[in-house]
Amino acid sequence: MSPYPKSLKKLISALEKLPGIGPKTAERFALYLTHSSPHDGRILMNALAEAEKTIIHCDICFNVADTSPCFICENKTRDQKTICVVSSPPEVLAFERSGEFKGAYHVLQGVLNPLDGINPEHIKIKELLTRIERDEIREVILGINPTVEGELTSTYITKLLNGKNIIITRIARGLPMGASVEYADDATLANALKERKKI
Amino acid sequence: MSPYPKSLKKLISALEKLPGIGPKTAERFALYLTHSSPHDGRILMNALAEAEKTIIHCDICFNVADTSPCFICENKTRDQKTICVVSSPPEVLAFERSGEFKGAYHVLQGVLNPLDGINPEHIKIKELLTRIERDEIREVILGINPTVEGELTSTYITKLLNGKNIIITRIARGLPMGASVEYADDATLANALKERKKI
Repeated sequence: MSPYPKSLKKLISALEKLPGIGPKTAERFALYLTHSSPHDGRILMNALAEAEKTIIHCDICFNVADTSPCFICENKTRDQKTICVVSSPPEVLAFERSGEFKGAYHVLQGVLNPLDGINPEHIKIKELLTRIERDEIREVILGINPTVEGELTSTYITKLLNGKNIIITRIARGLPMGASVEYADDATLANALKERKKI
Repeated sequence: MSPYPKSLKKLISALEKLPGIGPKTAERFALYLTHSSPHDGRILMNALAEAEKTIIHCDICFNVADTSPCFICENKTRDQKTICVVSSPPEVLAFERSGEFKGAYHVLQGVLNPLDGINPEHIKIKELLTRIERDEIREVILGINPTVEGELTSTYITKLLNGKNIIITRIARGLPMGASVEYADDATLANALKERKKI
């Protein structure tokens, strides 16, 4: 019989839901939050309550936001006719950090994965098409991760947009900065060669 | 500039406090709890609230509990004169799972670690001594992890109890069940030899 109080067991189950967290880590988290540092438990509880009250999706780009339209979609100094399509909010963060992009985003909230049953209707593709028509988008930059599912999603979107009066681009593939040719994987190196640039 | 709402950033900071969790994992957790599965966020919030209201320490054994004395300390069918000394609640759980122990526990809430400034007054050693006198404890089993700090703690407690009319034992060291001699580390094998038993 487990010597843990019922409420502690409940907390462990709730923490086990976190992505990549198993029962041992959840137990460690739960004991930390209630036993070693209840103060941090209270902070987390309040942060969750506040997040629940304030966090929504932007109805234009589907990024996490506390206003809709979000501050990026509302920013008139950004090029609202150029949208960078990504799969999830952390990628918006990454592009913003790079400081290179001054357009808007479209967060698909997932990538196509037919084996897992993720089909076009499960991600924000229909919304992307509607937005392109409604807002007269000039350029769509496919900024989706170059994984198998990401490539599938990019190809699917490209096919849908073909024939429309719109520029479709995708972010370049090649060797990351600081990488070594010796240790690059075959597909990356093949892409880097194929997309070589005249200097 | 980060495109995340302020409340999301707060939630990420709160999750970063969890042991072993860095900013990227905290971000993943926060987006999961608010974006992918807000339902699980609500469950976690409620579990934290309930845990905060109900989880206390048992004033006798210092284990996490929802009553004091806890149900182990209160159980008259268990041998309350034999106490197994451990450093934290998960070890109580492990001993209970083994089904081998029918006494009570004493949770030190830490081990001695002079380099990190954890001295005897920071863990429940004084409380252990008081309890041994008050409740006329017959046997103290040292069930602390056989790590450097654990050994130091066991040695320290042994010295304090020496000369008192009390049996002091420690859990056996040797090869774990299913282990192979070939891959056992030197210290484990040395201990297993030293503590060999006649059959």
